[in-house]
Amino acid sequence: MPSVDLNADLGEGFGIWELGDDDAMLEIVTSANIACGFHAGDPVRLATTCRSAAATGVRIGAQVGYHDLSGFGRRYIDVDPEELTADVIYQIGALQALAQAAGSAVGYIKPHGALYNTIVKNRDQARAVAAAVHTVDPGMPVLGLSGSVFFEEARRLGMRTVAEAFADRAYRPDGQLVSRREKGAVLLDPNQIAERVATMVTSGRVTAADGSTIEVEVESVCVHGDSPGAVEIATAVRKRLLADGIELAAFI
Amino acid sequence: MPSVDLNADLGEGFGIWELGDDDAMLEIVTSANIACGFHAGDPVRLATTCRSAAATGVRIGAQVGYHDLSGFGRRYIDVDPEELTADVIYQIGALQALAQAAGSAVGYIKPHGALYNTIVKNRDQARAVAAAVHTVDPGMPVLGLSGSVFFEEARRLGMRTVAEAFADRAYRPDGQLVSRREKGAVLLDPNQIAERVATMVTSGRVTAADGSTIEVEVESVCVHGDSPGAVEIATAVRKRLLADGIELAAFI
Amino acid sequence: MPSVDLNADLGEGFGIWELGDDDAMLEIVTSANIACGFHAGDPVRLATTCRSAAATGVRIGAQVGYHDLSGFGRRYIDVDPEELTADVIYQIGALQALAQAAGSAVGYIKPHGALYNTIVKNRDQARAVAAAVHTVDPGMPVLGLSGSVFFEEARRLGMRTVAEAFADRAYRPDGQLVSRREKGAVLLDPNQIAERVATMVTSGRVTAADGSTIEVEVESVCVHGDSPGAVEIATAVRKRLLADGIELAAFI
Amino acid sequence: MPSVDLNADLGEGFGIWELGDDDAMLEIVTSANIACGFHAGDPVRLATTCRSAAATGVRIGAQVGYHDLSGFGRRYIDVDPEELTADVIYQIGALQALAQAAGSAVGYIKPHGALYNTIVKNRDQARAVAAAVHTVDPGMPVLGLSGSVFFEEARRLGMRTVAEAFADRAYRPDGQLVSRREKGAVLLDPNQIAERVATMVTSGRVTAADGSTIEVEVESVCVHGDSPGAVEIATAVRKRLLADGIELAAFI
Repeated sequence: MPSVDLNADLGEGFGIWELGDDDAMLEIVTSANIACGFHAGDPVRLATTCRSAAATGVRIGAQVGYHDLSGFGRRYIDVDPEELTADVIYQIGALQALAQAAGSAVGYIKPHGALYNTIVKNRDQARAVAAAVHTVDPGMPVLGLSGSVFFEEARRLGMRTVAEAFADRAYRPDGQLVSRREKGAVLLDPNQIAERVATMVTSGRVTAADGSTIEVEVESVCVHGDSPGAVEIATAVRKRLLADGIELAAFI
Repeated sequence: MPSVDLNADLGEGFGIWELGDDDAMLEIVTSANIACGFHAGDPVRLATTCRSAAATGVRIGAQVGYHDLSGFGRRYIDVDPEELTADVIYQIGALQALAQAAGSAVGYIKPHGALYNTIVKNRDQARAVAAAVHTVDPGMPVLGLSGSVFFEEARRLGMRTVAEAFADRAYRPDGQLVSRREKGAVLLDPNQIAERVATMVTSGRVTAADGSTIEVEVESVCVHGDSPGAVEIATAVRKRLLADGIELAAFI
Repeated sequence: MPSVDLNADLGEGFGIWELGDDDAMLEIVTSANIACGFHAGDPVRLATTCRSAAATGVRIGAQVGYHDLSGFGRRYIDVDPEELTADVIYQIGALQALAQAAGSAVGYIKPHGALYNTIVKNRDQARAVAAAVHTVDPGMPVLGLSGSVFFEEARRLGMRTVAEAFADRAYRPDGQLVSRREKGAVLLDPNQIAERVATMVTSGRVTAADGSTIEVEVESVCVHGDSPGAVEIATAVRKRLLADGIELAAFI
Repeated sequence: MPSVDLNADLGEGFGIWELGDDDAMLEIVTSANIACGFHAGDPVRLATTCRSAAATGVRIGAQVGYHDLSGFGRRYIDVDPEELTADVIYQIGALQALAQAAGSAVGYIKPHGALYNTIVKNRDQARAVAAAVHTVDPGMPVLGLSGSVFFEEARRLGMRTVAEAFADRAYRPDGQLVSRREKGAVLLDPNQIAERVATMVTSGRVTAADGSTIEVEVESVCVHGDSPGAVEIATAVRKRLLADGIELAAFI
């Protein structure tokens, strides 16, 4: 029986400010990328989110990012690699303690926002992030983009890399995502998205923006929790995968 | 052979800003209260300080505080206890990961500044801090003031409390410290301070500000690293204790 | 024709995080207490909010607070008065520049959250805030609670104080607000609230929580913009006042 | 009688942390680039620095930067231009209020660190900064690098640009500064630096790193206040210029 992981970003409010419907998403996904306080997430919210994830049996991942609350980690920052390594270790450790306090543990790492995008190509920062994770735990898997230099650097250190696909994003013929600045970059129709994810998972292929068919590696599918209609889309994806006989389970 | 621990605050710069002479202090003390990023200490500085502590065989403690960089954690903040517990767990976890990356570990917890002073009397915040430490590790010792409600709460949870004395502070007849706002609150003469510490450690007594002799519990002596003459004072204390046949060693 | 001002807190999101429906509230109120970046409000959001206020003819006030994003300015901080004065001048100046860029100006100051509550009684902080406003502009009105030491200190400096009443809060017999921790502290029914406000404005009296009638000074009425039903309540208050022949206009 | 301005960065501590000897520098320079709280400078320190500048008759400039305390504004951040404009207006306004409270005023703007370097070439951010300054005051001069796109954009808006030279930095043959990463980028000898500055000011020429003579536009000379030997170097520059009959005065 084929199996796939569903991941989403959680714990991304801050103080009084809420973002997304974490409780609803925890009923849908199998892995929760929980913020670590640098781009979002104050400690008490992270503690609560870890407890909710533990209670629903959802695996916890540390969603590490640039230290930039006002930019939500979505702006590239030219951080020195040595500083970036320390920043990532700090974030992971903080979430590990909160996850453990919730009776769970951090099971993987996923970079967030501009850091995620930067280390697709920027080797210095990619190496800095991989080194940080490896230092904390050489057996800790990293979730990211297949073909990224981040994955190259992680594998060079003997680490487990887990390739994810994006449920609601258009792909270019070269396997990269169509930029959000271009029209049609983000898909909105729940049924179309669910259909597309099911095809990706079962066939390892997806139709790119130019109509060509490309290969895509999928051990986990990223669904968004904070966009309009997010919960509806994630629900549609989950239902369709189950209907197609695909098991939803955290990657091993 | 009598033995005592010497502790000092370290890693309290931030970004470009330095504070105190950490390298010099690491040659003197046996326990380093390393900041955790909330009142001071960016991750890369904390990483460096942990490595230096590990290299010099100095034990690492997590110096947890209020989240207040501009106030250096010296201003009381009316934090909700549940938030404070999460804040403290977050800080400890962050430093644990950095300490482990340095080949060491966090061996104890010491509250900083206004938090330290607050939980001498404020039971809600004291309980919140004790609960945080206990959650991370029930066997983790806490360093603080004998007679504080923080120690009461920590002991209620079965935790090990370690009483510290202050090398350069005047005591009131009731065993509390003379407020920094009063004249004579801070001692400045290295020889006088060294003499006083030696007496405290060997006799368990100290002369209070009114001339009376009071009892003082001393498992660790706090020396400051950031005041003018700090290194000279700490050196004098260390030399005097060694000359008096007192072993300097991290508390057990 | 009697006249009253309606004020609400605006611009209180931060980065990606939204709070309240600012556009809707700007159609209702006559004065907008715009955050200044210390408890909420990043500069680009404040710029946008100032432009919207200018476009709708709503007067801009600077809503100054403690520097505490994670606590939304709702936690007392034991700030040194000299620092608090500088913090408040800084916030007012920042908003003045943004308001001017929007073709408007800061017309009054209103303290926020824990600072608002603290300076009802705490004379040192009250004096620090009054001094800050006076330094920026001796003619700048301050919005606050009648009977507060803040008003005493402001008047001592010859400043104009503007007393506000709270639309949705229960009053104690002594004219103070019932604490939010007590049952019935916050009123929820739009019609009841509108009725109550109309009575306060026309008679200068309100029924306290114990059923007694007390006097209340009302030059401005505070309606909330971020609670559930906030827009509905504010709309009901506005409609009722207009129906009763009361002019809604920014205080002079 | 020829005249030149001497400028230095001031007010760049934060909270407990000091940086540079502001009092000494205020006896040397004619213009003080005072931080605005985004890369350094808490409000009470800025207030104090403004008062000291006012007392010594030194003109105040607003030193605006990226919002990055842990990086001291020295890391490029990919800020959206609209946000950058608001960030700069916010910073200028904050310092204007503090300068006015000190009985002085903000007389010019100088970008700091990575922002300074970025807008030498990056037109979007250059335009965003120029627009911000122009919005606050179309007559406000900007201090920066001759030949930068920042100056192009400022002039396009009809603004006054003031070209500065660097006392202690080596120049490339094309008039740009030698990168700090290259050997010999920073000059250290006070006499050599003083000699060089005197030549630049009187002849409009400087010897580049390759030995060639290049033209350099100098209305203001930047001396550093936070490097080792900074005060000594700045003093040597000042003395030499005065000895050569050059008047030291804030640019007009």
